[in-house]
Amino acid sequence: MGRSQKQLTVTVTAGRRQRRAAETRIRLFRCALKLIAERGLANVTVEDITEAADVGKGTFFNYFGKKEHVLGVMAEIQLGKIREAVERAQRGRQTTEETLRRMVRRLAQEPGRSPNLARALISSLLASEEVSQVVRNRMQEGRRLIAGIVAAGQAAGHVDPRLKPERVAAQLVQACLGTVILWSLDGRPSLASRFEETFRHFWRSIAVVPTNATATGRRKRA
Amino acid sequence: MGRSQKQLTVTVTAGRRQRRAAETRIRLFRCALKLIAERGLANVTVEDITEAADVGKGTFFNYFGKKEHVLGVMAEIQLGKIREAVERAQRGRQTTEETLRRMVRRLAQEPGRSPNLARALISSLLASEEVSQVVRNRMQEGRRLIAGIVAAGQAAGHVDPRLKPERVAAQLVQACLGTVILWSLDGRPSLASRFEETFRHFWRSIAVVPTNATATGRRKRA
Repeated sequence: MGRSQKQLTVTVTAGRRQRRAAETRIRLFRCALKLIAERGLANVTVEDITEAADVGKGTFFNYFGKKEHVLGVMAEIQLGKIREAVERAQRGRQTTEETLRRMVRRLAQEPGRSPNLARALISSLLASEEVSQVVRNRMQEGRRLIAGIVAAGQAAGHVDPRLKPERVAAQLVQACLGTVILWSLDGRPSLASRFEETFRHFWRSIAVVPTNATATGRRKRA
Repeated sequence: MGRSQKQLTVTVTAGRRQRRAAETRIRLFRCALKLIAERGLANVTVEDITEAADVGKGTFFNYFGKKEHVLGVMAEIQLGKIREAVERAQRGRQTTEETLRRMVRRLAQEPGRSPNLARALISSLLASEEVSQVVRNRMQEGRRLIAGIVAAGQAAGHVDPRLKPERVAAQLVQACLGTVILWSLDGRPSLASRFEETFRHFWRSIAVVPTNATATGRRKRA
């Protein structure tokens, strides 16, 4: 085997190993979510999770420092969707409204799987200082990124320039969190349609009002 | 003692008894909240609560069917504040914006006492099916009442007549819930100022836009 052939094999193996590790991590996360939705975080052990994921108990600690940290994966997934929106905004092919609406729609996917799951997630987030710490950091990063999209929207003339981008970002995050809670209590209609409505409401309050706007003209855009 | 004198005594005694019962109920609620904020609902027993409130264990069950029901008192208190807003709206001396802003400010008082308490409350609400059931009913009633204020605001020409009052009410409740959550994670500034900002944002998206409005003119009002 020549040198470059050998290197290629090493790289492919490393790539495969990384992919497997990422898959195992997500599998542990999904199994944990399912159990937490059924029983609540306090009644789920690491062993329950590893058994459900069909891996040894020790494997869990290759990926997470402790049980509570597994919930941070949800925050990471959501943060990834916000990062995608930032890239979209930077490409500048969509209006700010389209970029943010698409982002909000994508953010509904994970928590929207089941009302019980959403309740368990937010409840665990608030009940445990450990989880709060992890999620708080990701949320702050998410708000910072959204504020960037809003600021770009102001520069492009889509968003009212007198609003503070970081405050607007906080309003959007709050509106989404509140929407998840109300939906998780009612359970219907889908979280996606609830998020769509929340976004419409949100957008109306930040969109630039053309100086010659009439009430009707402005509302039709939103 | 004449008959009317005797009746008066009975009435006064009944009134006093009622007042004492109401006070005991609120005392049990306050003690429960304090303990739940410190330890979480799961780690607080009825005996812990009655000991803190300095009453016999049996007394608790004169007021609440089970431990979880004590949290319903918070929902009642909030519902009372919404009812006050309905009465204000009916007197018609304030604009809809003033009535709703005042209501939102009053709603911030109870959960705004402590971030830990707010976290414990929402976490318990979502974790326990028992609590959810109680709170869900009160919340639906709250939304119905707020929708009434919004509809009156539409009739008075303050609120955009094309919006559905019950949807607008849901948006306000969601925004407030999300604001409590984000605040309970950050802990600063006060919930009152966060609610004030959330309300400004909310109002911008439902206010009637005067047909001759410029962007500046409209935003200054909000």
